[in-house]
Amino acid sequence: MMTVTRLDVADARHLIEGAAARAATIGVPMCIAVTDESGQLVAFERMDGGKVTSITIAIDKAFTASAARKATHEYGEASQPGAPAYGIASAIGGRLMVIGGGLPVTVDGVVVGGIGVSSGTPAQDRDVAQTGIDFFLGQRSDGAA
Amino acid sequence: MMTVTRLDVADARHLIEGAAARAATIGVPMCIAVTDESGQLVAFERMDGGKVTSITIAIDKAFTASAARKATHEYGEASQPGAPAYGIASAIGGRLMVIGGGLPVTVDGVVVGGIGVSSGTPAQDRDVAQTGIDFFLGQRSDGAA
Amino acid sequence: MMTVTRLDVADARHLIEGAAARAATIGVPMCIAVTDESGQLVAFERMDGGKVTSITIAIDKAFTASAARKATHEYGEASQPGAPAYGIASAIGGRLMVIGGGLPVTVDGVVVGGIGVSSGTPAQDRDVAQTGIDFFLGQRSDGAA
Amino acid sequence: MMTVTRLDVADARHLIEGAAARAATIGVPMCIAVTDESGQLVAFERMDGGKVTSITIAIDKAFTASAARKATHEYGEASQPGAPAYGIASAIGGRLMVIGGGLPVTVDGVVVGGIGVSSGTPAQDRDVAQTGIDFFLGQRSDGAA
Repeated sequence: MMTVTRLDVADARHLIEGAAARAATIGVPMCIAVTDESGQLVAFERMDGGKVTSITIAIDKAFTASAARKATHEYGEASQPGAPAYGIASAIGGRLMVIGGGLPVTVDGVVVGGIGVSSGTPAQDRDVAQTGIDFFLGQRSDGAA
Repeated sequence: MMTVTRLDVADARHLIEGAAARAATIGVPMCIAVTDESGQLVAFERMDGGKVTSITIAIDKAFTASAARKATHEYGEASQPGAPAYGIASAIGGRLMVIGGGLPVTVDGVVVGGIGVSSGTPAQDRDVAQTGIDFFLGQRSDGAA
Repeated sequence: MMTVTRLDVADARHLIEGAAARAATIGVPMCIAVTDESGQLVAFERMDGGKVTSITIAIDKAFTASAARKATHEYGEASQPGAPAYGIASAIGGRLMVIGGGLPVTVDGVVVGGIGVSSGTPAQDRDVAQTGIDFFLGQRSDGAA
Repeated sequence: MMTVTRLDVADARHLIEGAAARAATIGVPMCIAVTDESGQLVAFERMDGGKVTSITIAIDKAFTASAARKATHEYGEASQPGAPAYGIASAIGGRLMVIGGGLPVTVDGVVVGGIGVSSGTPAQDRDVAQTGIDFFLGQRSDGAA
């Protein structure tokens, strides 16, 4: 038997809250998804004005980042023509995302879930996802203090 | 040209808050999804302990209820053997849900979205979905008062 | 954060070993799948002569039983015409199985995974799945002794 | 009428055993799949810590290698921009894998199945798959001796 640690819904809300605040600051309404360590959806919000295509993309970015324990932009680099993971973008029915905006959420060195953001440029999506993680980790520190 | 009225993310949060409170009261952690009038996901939460199978089922119940403007349990009756909509359960790749727990959200006589709930019995799912709608409508009245 | 307990690959081998021995005894080569508590595949074997259609069916029975925490034959009863879950068989792209042969694996009152068996009659599949669970639990007792 | 020769489940276990031993040696828990000459799954194991995304990827690498009778890394070369098989990565719903880690299993000059490995780098995956084949072939020689 194995024991695993994963995000709960309260954690997911913090991740979304931090990400949404950053998205509002840069003026780009986003779709934000949070998955557990197995890649299964825990929470999702489409901010008013978030793109419909981004619903699935955000969910799949979070799925990829958590279930593969790797940031989606890293897959972007690894899957360029000539690079080792070339062609992985169409794996798992196209759910394996190689575009920036999906980040694993790591606590105490273990991946406990993922966050996926979509509607802006990949750089904006990644920035918003990272800000969500920073806010979440800050809340945890506060709670632990 | 047309103008449509639909739920925004603040509305979706009220729907989920009301539904989750009811789910907690009856002691059944649920997956709760809210879609807009086009059937597209606005917000989702899997309460701690909600079933993994219910992620998709809740989203598809909300999709069905909003996009078809019909409660999923009504499709259940209409799709029994010999009834007019027999066989519709496998339509749209199986996304057309005929099990109770998906309800359209109606404001001023117009369907503006849907809520889908899954993890309990269909009767529990439906009860939780309806409580979410009642809470949402109550918040609107309070705001208007 | 949440902590969950799930089957590891050694557990999965015991489940398959016990199920395969029973399948051999009754003379029906089977496909046998084991999933973790999130419904994700841990191990699979197609015994020599197991049916090709049963590969997916066994995997999906295990997925359903673990992720919905419910035996697939119980869904069979609940999804008959007129029953509350009528129509659920086509949910999740048809992955929600309502045919006997998928059982949750429960340890200390918690569902830690599932086993799915296919190639015989549903009654045979269920018998083989249950024998796999009994063997697994027996191995655990021996280990604990 | 035709007669085909293919891996049986005992062969599949040897392939997985040899591959898993190598994966343990290099310290990367893997998903390992074995398919028959028709590309159909015979056996699968997710080592403790293997990635969830790699479940499907390993199965699809084995499927590709056996059913196309070609190593997946060869497809990687053949599907680069400008190369003859450019675009094949998205064929068959994305199941045609062009990333290293899928190898045909050949006995007496005939492809009798395939092995697919995922969770490491493509080079690690390929190394682990090859070690599985070497171990399997060694067992055959021993048995024949």
